[in-house]
Amino acid sequence: MAYSNAYEPSAPELPESFVEQQLDGENRYHYAYQYQPSQQFSSSSVMFPPETHPDIVRSFESADRDRSGFLDESELRQALSFSGYEGISNRTIRFLMFIYKNPGDSLLRLGPKEYVELWNCLAQWRSIFDRYDRDRSGKMNSTALRDAFFHLDYMLPTLVLQLMISQFDDGTGKNVELCFDSFLECGMIVKGLTEKFKEKDPGYTGYATLSYDVFMSMIIPFIVSYD
Amino acid sequence: MAYSNAYEPSAPELPESFVEQQLDGENRYHYAYQYQPSQQFSSSSVMFPPETHPDIVRSFESADRDRSGFLDESELRQALSFSGYEGISNRTIRFLMFIYKNPGDSLLRLGPKEYVELWNCLAQWRSIFDRYDRDRSGKMNSTALRDAFFHLDYMLPTLVLQLMISQFDDGTGKNVELCFDSFLECGMIVKGLTEKFKEKDPGYTGYATLSYDVFMSMIIPFIVSYD
Repeated sequence: MAYSNAYEPSAPELPESFVEQQLDGENRYHYAYQYQPSQQFSSSSVMFPPETHPDIVRSFESADRDRSGFLDESELRQALSFSGYEGISNRTIRFLMFIYKNPGDSLLRLGPKEYVELWNCLAQWRSIFDRYDRDRSGKMNSTALRDAFFHLDYMLPTLVLQLMISQFDDGTGKNVELCFDSFLECGMIVKGLTEKFKEKDPGYTGYATLSYDVFMSMIIPFIVSYD
Repeated sequence: MAYSNAYEPSAPELPESFVEQQLDGENRYHYAYQYQPSQQFSSSSVMFPPETHPDIVRSFESADRDRSGFLDESELRQALSFSGYEGISNRTIRFLMFIYKNPGDSLLRLGPKEYVELWNCLAQWRSIFDRYDRDRSGKMNSTALRDAFFHLDYMLPTLVLQLMISQFDDGTGKNVELCFDSFLECGMIVKGLTEKFKEKDPGYTGYATLSYDVFMSMIIPFIVSYD
């Protein structure tokens, strides 16, 4: 079958809100987070969950130049570079914002809670990338990508792997190598779509019966996030 | 149910090759067109199907500056502007190339046969757009988009329509209007995904049972086309 129900090792979790926004359909736009008041940070970071690492708070506050309490696209890029994630493509930044934004917020921006979830997720994808970037070149070839997905319990069809990798082909036809940015993007897409599928295949049979509405609602968010 | 099996009126057809490339999975990269030799054009246009309108041939040949017999991304943009389709976004150009390219060709480029198919498809989407752009403003609002899809037999979930339209929201929250470019993109995505779904729902029940492999193989092409 296409994936197992063994959850060790597993890919980093998607935000609760992303699962919810897909599940509650029409109510997506009315979803609101339950913020936990923080005891340990300055008033400007009162929205951060308790025990958020100070470095995460610092990267957020340094990047939030207009002190809006939210990060827009360019502010998020700044915050991530403060955190050692330089050179993440606009495409990936937008995709991350789309997945991690509060669905109750009509603007494409991240608040503290969403940023912490994103930050933790990136750290986990980073450690997976480093595990498979065996020669420490900062690049992962297609074999390593296949291995990484396999060990995350994603047995992807060859065609799907070919298509994902083909995005990063420079046209020379030589062996394509993925940087962390590309790996992150592939991983989030595969993880996201697989989670959607698993919701409809609770018995892990490898098959799911979907209505047209559910099918379209599951997929369109992944496509439109590339605005 | 989500869509009817009445085919009048219907959305412009996707290229045969796009349906085939999805169906034959692993063989996608080995798919090859059966070109029909043309009797009526110069040797440089021998690859054009018979009865291709001379304007189409002219727009192709004028844009194919390096006489390669193929249009790359910028050449296609040029060819389309010769044909009255100015200002089509890079994103849409890439999406069109991805859908209309010969899957047997590892490069993202269009030959004469693929260009003719694309050209005919654009003409049909254009006439649909004009029908719903009632005030001839060159813009279509979300209500008109919903009507257009409805009359094309696509009963889309509200969430899906909201998400598609939200791509074109400038953030002011005012009524979003779609230009032809945006309408074309929405239409191609909805048409493409619905065709994929219908292949798995031959009885038009509105439900389809998909394996994980099929599910992923159906969707990834729509996502990766936005490289």
